[in-house]
Amino acid sequence: MHEIPYTPRQTSYDLNPSDELNDLRMSDKTQPLFEHVKKFIAETVEPMTVEYMRLGEKKTDPWTFAPGQLEVLQKAKDKAKSEGLWNFFLPDAHTGEGLSNLDYAYIAAELGKSPLASESMNCNAPDTGNMEVLERVGTEAQKKQWLEPLLNGEIRSAYVMTEPGVMSSDAKNIACTAKLEGDEWVINGEKYYISGLGDPRCKIMIVMVKTNPDAPPSKQQSQILVPVGTPGVEVLGPMHVFGHDHAPRGHMHMRFNNVRVPKENILLGEGRGFEISQVRLGPGRIHHCMRTIGKAEKALDYMVKRGLTREAFGKKLAHLGGNLQIIAQARCEIEAMRLMVLKAAKAMDVLGNKEARVWVSMVKAMVPERTCRIIDQSIQMHGATGISQWTPLAEMYTDVRHLRFADGPDEVHWMVVGRHELTL
Amino acid sequence: MHEIPYTPRQTSYDLNPSDELNDLRMSDKTQPLFEHVKKFIAETVEPMTVEYMRLGEKKTDPWTFAPGQLEVLQKAKDKAKSEGLWNFFLPDAHTGEGLSNLDYAYIAAELGKSPLASESMNCNAPDTGNMEVLERVGTEAQKKQWLEPLLNGEIRSAYVMTEPGVMSSDAKNIACTAKLEGDEWVINGEKYYISGLGDPRCKIMIVMVKTNPDAPPSKQQSQILVPVGTPGVEVLGPMHVFGHDHAPRGHMHMRFNNVRVPKENILLGEGRGFEISQVRLGPGRIHHCMRTIGKAEKALDYMVKRGLTREAFGKKLAHLGGNLQIIAQARCEIEAMRLMVLKAAKAMDVLGNKEARVWVSMVKAMVPERTCRIIDQSIQMHGATGISQWTPLAEMYTDVRHLRFADGPDEVHWMVVGRHELTL
Amino acid sequence: MHEIPYTPRQTSYDLNPSDELNDLRMSDKTQPLFEHVKKFIAETVEPMTVEYMRLGEKKTDPWTFAPGQLEVLQKAKDKAKSEGLWNFFLPDAHTGEGLSNLDYAYIAAELGKSPLASESMNCNAPDTGNMEVLERVGTEAQKKQWLEPLLNGEIRSAYVMTEPGVMSSDAKNIACTAKLEGDEWVINGEKYYISGLGDPRCKIMIVMVKTNPDAPPSKQQSQILVPVGTPGVEVLGPMHVFGHDHAPRGHMHMRFNNVRVPKENILLGEGRGFEISQVRLGPGRIHHCMRTIGKAEKALDYMVKRGLTREAFGKKLAHLGGNLQIIAQARCEIEAMRLMVLKAAKAMDVLGNKEARVWVSMVKAMVPERTCRIIDQSIQMHGATGISQWTPLAEMYTDVRHLRFADGPDEVHWMVVGRHELTL
Amino acid sequence: MHEIPYTPRQTSYDLNPSDELNDLRMSDKTQPLFEHVKKFIAETVEPMTVEYMRLGEKKTDPWTFAPGQLEVLQKAKDKAKSEGLWNFFLPDAHTGEGLSNLDYAYIAAELGKSPLASESMNCNAPDTGNMEVLERVGTEAQKKQWLEPLLNGEIRSAYVMTEPGVMSSDAKNIACTAKLEGDEWVINGEKYYISGLGDPRCKIMIVMVKTNPDAPPSKQQSQILVPVGTPGVEVLGPMHVFGHDHAPRGHMHMRFNNVRVPKENILLGEGRGFEISQVRLGPGRIHHCMRTIGKAEKALDYMVKRGLTREAFGKKLAHLGGNLQIIAQARCEIEAMRLMVLKAAKAMDVLGNKEARVWVSMVKAMVPERTCRIIDQSIQMHGATGISQWTPLAEMYTDVRHLRFADGPDEVHWMVVGRHELTL
Repeated sequence: MHEIPYTPRQTSYDLNPSDELNDLRMSDKTQPLFEHVKKFIAETVEPMTVEYMRLGEKKTDPWTFAPGQLEVLQKAKDKAKSEGLWNFFLPDAHTGEGLSNLDYAYIAAELGKSPLASESMNCNAPDTGNMEVLERVGTEAQKKQWLEPLLNGEIRSAYVMTEPGVMSSDAKNIACTAKLEGDEWVINGEKYYISGLGDPRCKIMIVMVKTNPDAPPSKQQSQILVPVGTPGVEVLGPMHVFGHDHAPRGHMHMRFNNVRVPKENILLGEGRGFEISQVRLGPGRIHHCMRTIGKAEKALDYMVKRGLTREAFGKKLAHLGGNLQIIAQARCEIEAMRLMVLKAAKAMDVLGNKEARVWVSMVKAMVPERTCRIIDQSIQMHGATGISQWTPLAEMYTDVRHLRFADGPDEVHWMVVGRHELTL
Repeated sequence: MHEIPYTPRQTSYDLNPSDELNDLRMSDKTQPLFEHVKKFIAETVEPMTVEYMRLGEKKTDPWTFAPGQLEVLQKAKDKAKSEGLWNFFLPDAHTGEGLSNLDYAYIAAELGKSPLASESMNCNAPDTGNMEVLERVGTEAQKKQWLEPLLNGEIRSAYVMTEPGVMSSDAKNIACTAKLEGDEWVINGEKYYISGLGDPRCKIMIVMVKTNPDAPPSKQQSQILVPVGTPGVEVLGPMHVFGHDHAPRGHMHMRFNNVRVPKENILLGEGRGFEISQVRLGPGRIHHCMRTIGKAEKALDYMVKRGLTREAFGKKLAHLGGNLQIIAQARCEIEAMRLMVLKAAKAMDVLGNKEARVWVSMVKAMVPERTCRIIDQSIQMHGATGISQWTPLAEMYTDVRHLRFADGPDEVHWMVVGRHELTL
Repeated sequence: MHEIPYTPRQTSYDLNPSDELNDLRMSDKTQPLFEHVKKFIAETVEPMTVEYMRLGEKKTDPWTFAPGQLEVLQKAKDKAKSEGLWNFFLPDAHTGEGLSNLDYAYIAAELGKSPLASESMNCNAPDTGNMEVLERVGTEAQKKQWLEPLLNGEIRSAYVMTEPGVMSSDAKNIACTAKLEGDEWVINGEKYYISGLGDPRCKIMIVMVKTNPDAPPSKQQSQILVPVGTPGVEVLGPMHVFGHDHAPRGHMHMRFNNVRVPKENILLGEGRGFEISQVRLGPGRIHHCMRTIGKAEKALDYMVKRGLTREAFGKKLAHLGGNLQIIAQARCEIEAMRLMVLKAAKAMDVLGNKEARVWVSMVKAMVPERTCRIIDQSIQMHGATGISQWTPLAEMYTDVRHLRFADGPDEVHWMVVGRHELTL
Repeated sequence: MHEIPYTPRQTSYDLNPSDELNDLRMSDKTQPLFEHVKKFIAETVEPMTVEYMRLGEKKTDPWTFAPGQLEVLQKAKDKAKSEGLWNFFLPDAHTGEGLSNLDYAYIAAELGKSPLASESMNCNAPDTGNMEVLERVGTEAQKKQWLEPLLNGEIRSAYVMTEPGVMSSDAKNIACTAKLEGDEWVINGEKYYISGLGDPRCKIMIVMVKTNPDAPPSKQQSQILVPVGTPGVEVLGPMHVFGHDHAPRGHMHMRFNNVRVPKENILLGEGRGFEISQVRLGPGRIHHCMRTIGKAEKALDYMVKRGLTREAFGKKLAHLGGNLQIIAQARCEIEAMRLMVLKAAKAMDVLGNKEARVWVSMVKAMVPERTCRIIDQSIQMHGATGISQWTPLAEMYTDVRHLRFADGPDEVHWMVVGRHELTL
């Protein structure tokens, strides 16, 4: 007899087994597209990437693209667009673009395996998030001026949120200010890790600012469009990611010094910045996770190949010590992560981004951490070659490691999941 | 430019996103049954369990059931049967019983939350495996004599495989012998951890023996039906599980001393014991995992309840230190495990037990280990009460811990998964 | 150039490398004693334990000792005492007993390997803690009446602190009350997990009570001597540890119903209960950890033996998969834990219990958790035999697991360490 | 009664508690030196480092030192030498240099906290290993030509062992050949990760080659001195470490194309290369670990500082969620690692490098992995700043991560420890 009686909770997680939520199949209509994407990556993107990197080796100024680099990339983009491999990321858009989140999840995993695949098919961050925001909340004029060329892959964009002085993954902490003076917003503040701002094709920024310091905490922020090149925008230098500056796109440290933009550059309206970031963050976060599944697969591909080709102590490395178990556990983790990402994507499709947020937080906290571990194990199986430029593993590691705090640190996502659990 | 070129492997794990395999919905027709089961557990099984345990407290000889215990249990069984809550576990049976593995997975998670629920609905191990074997490979006479009363819940059975002297999770190592003398098999050998053999209702054993020592390794074994009470069957005593003997059902240590049974008691035929265990083990393993999901949920239920009701240092325990994150990670693990179990069940339905074996090995290695961790965390949050008889947590822990080597230790399952991965 | 400048903290952990604190040698004079203890365990305690357990198998009432059990144990105690293997645990006692904490740490690791070794040499919990308290703060009369027979191993004792309703590892939460009525304390309240109270030799309890509810939080408690058998002491039944009741010594659930003891039974004085528990807890906690090192060694001994004698897949188990690495990591963990325990013991010798408390908290949080892992791995390498009564592993596991919340849960000890770190 | 009887093994790990091995005190005579080193780092090295880095920012060719850089460094070296802070690493040298390994361990932890401290006091890898080899096995002529200027800090050196095509942490796999033609060795082969070869001050290489392919496996290798600049030495380019090339010192990929050096450039004699690497590797490995303790301390220093200065959700970061426990566990790990490194160093002093090899393998496998985890946690607590150039954390991470396979991957060291354990 237990003193503490048990009544099973009926949680939202196990209520309706027959629900559509548990149907994780890609739609039949997307299957040919999926095959097409894989073929396009193998036959067009990968060879282009080799050429792109070869060209890049010759440049002298890191902060430019090498001659020819943008051309080969653009050629792949043109081909992708002409073949309909374009803008998969934007479900239910008025523009008619996009797949369901679930269908996109399968495709994004393939995109994640190849460093230039996303951009080749116009599915690259942060443009995807910026396009989604413009499509969802932009005025007709804003859409015409910025969304159209972005959807066409003609320009690129930056998302300017993170600040060095505060925990800015919580938008409420934003310190950068915008004050209305006459018909203009006057922006002042410091930002960092503004990815892609070094790219000459980057033409527009969406900037998170504080406009209403006296409003309730979630009504103080706004998001404002600031064209690159507006006077007062000062780039202080590149931030590094484990020593890389990722020139020429870069992750910029910058300052707004009395930067003035027209009043109508605000998105959605004053004090609605937090609301907009809700629109943005669900998809943004899950796109990262979808692509990360592909990276985990890639790390395992490398691990298996190494394990079958390298020998030591008279055995194939795959059969030495605990290596076979490491390989098996990586496979198991990948399948578990894949199913969780698919479920979160389906939840967004079925329940909407808001209701799906706990699923998104789960995968955002789960996927990068575990993928880091898999990549790290793949590195270890390669020895020094694993951290060298001869494999993509080190680069993949730093990239995925960075996701553990980008768009909210793991700890904040666990807090979201935990708090929800307490209400069940 | 990477020196080590990358060609993504096309693995069986990511080939066909649109495939039925990814549809993890319970069938619509099973949804009412699922609700019925939950209601039956809450309204019939749980009160019966309280009564059953109360009766058990009074007994003096641990190796009997207390007066009344079997009666209250039987009453619940009768009710279940009359309401059609019976024999869910046997898909595609000629007897017409059973749900698909996928549908059963959802129901089994509910069964796992309540210690007598499986038996109440005739879905308890090892009878389920024994019934499946008899149904798949038994002769008409064998079915009539043993399968029928088992399907009716009139008798119980034991599965006699594990031996103390060898790594018997690999059937090929079996040392217990059976020799044909005239029209009889003569069996000699030692076995242990024979669960349920102490139960007075246990009438029949399926015994794994070595019959053909000179055949190739996987053709040396046979499985033979041995009625309980056959002369020469010697019970040496109960084996313990973390100090428990689980009397009166027990986990028996036993010896076969020239035990004689008729020639026709062999199942399927000489040398086909290994083949039969393939029939058995897929479902057996996954049923354990399905129920374990329910136990993980139960441990989390307890963790949340404790976290919200206990205070220390002026705070609810759930909000102290890393506890909220522990709760959140438990939820995330449970959802990942649930999806993996569903996928493995679906694989069995769609691909067959043989093709699905890697999925089954993944969940068999993944689910008990992670559930042990969740139960352990729930224990820790309860302090001494967590290991006491006041909660079911300690009992659940030892039960699930035992699964980490029952039906093959984790390490062997990882080996299966790893070897398969190397062939992709 | 790093924006965030670095000034190394001078922490207490790395200040004085030449300090006596880093001399972790057992004293030369204790070396012969150490050898003597090992010999005594091997030649006297172990054979006695076999006899003791064999006798125990025959008893019918679990809540008594079997005939002869206490006699064989007493015989070993007499021998130990006559050989000077007695009361090692009490440094700097006026009675002249005891070794330094450091010297005792080495000996206690040996005691931990054998279940009756501590009691055979009168070094068993909770008597050690009770004796230490009496020696440090008892009156002459209290010493005469209770300390002397305890030091002589003639009686045993209980420590009555933990309560089911509150987080009682923090003495400040104690709810059980004692009120002075005339010349008597009147005690009321509920306690549980009172180890050893079922032992017929247990004659005295030290009870933590709340006497001064209006005083500052750490001045509200007192500790009072209550002879076993005082009217109003009600034993409600045994608490289980993973299903064990550890009869006949037991872990009792009990109630004080208007229990009256003389005013002078208070220890040290009213409101000084918290102060006394500081005296007690340092040594108590570290004694557990010292013995646990021995258990970790024992688990590794079993792991190695199993690894070298069991075969599977044509190899010794020790050479299969990751097992050799598991063995190696267990060795490394044990050596790291051993050094930490020695350092904490030395810190108590050199700095005093109060200053050493952060070291004690570190080992209290570190040692049981990691030893649980090692024992669990040893279990896994044994398969079902690992959780059976055929090895001591399951019993060791539950014993050490219980330490993760006894005398303060791991989480509270980490809090102590973390808070201290923030002040450095 | 346990079926499997227990006899405690008497292992080398617990035999002699009174042994000198357990005295981990720094010698009294080294204490003033220790204080001097700390002062010198704070007052000379750290300001020099700021200057050195500032100068480095201005350079245009990464593969040179910037004007002035080597001068400021040299000035610090001159000061160190004049103050006797020089060549601590070489115990028992005929030259009279060096501290005991134990004393050096304490000092090296301080060196590890500051990137240029080791070089400032001529204790930098790989020169330390090369000097030790020359001192132990060099001829008088070799010592005069190469050891003297190295001990004086006038030149630097490289150790040329690792090859891209084989698992070269096992010297027996070396593929690079040297054949004796007349009075010259003719060397051919490919090497990579040759650290420091880009440094203009690097004048001499010690090259591991295969000279006797027909000898027993451990007698096939030799080590040969090859002056930098010898014809046929071809530098193919720098290898990266997580994207860094660490110019101008670099980690070079190189080829020996019929490189000819005089016969007498061989060290110790033909076929004795493996023997020499035994001389070298013990100290080399443990020096890394000693310095890594300092890095772990530094990561914790950053963690604590961040935890006390950053706020989120209305609390100091150190008090949010599980952070305080992470800090506490880091402290505990550091102290455990420190004691293990000290013990391994003492074992080298007392038992000699060969007998101490299991201790060295333990710390080599334990310290970098755990320090990686601590640095990673410190990074996580800093968010994006943690992987930026604003803290040293990312650089420390890649540096320590690299140690997990440099001088033998963790897995090989665990194998050494495990195999030894099986013999106890």
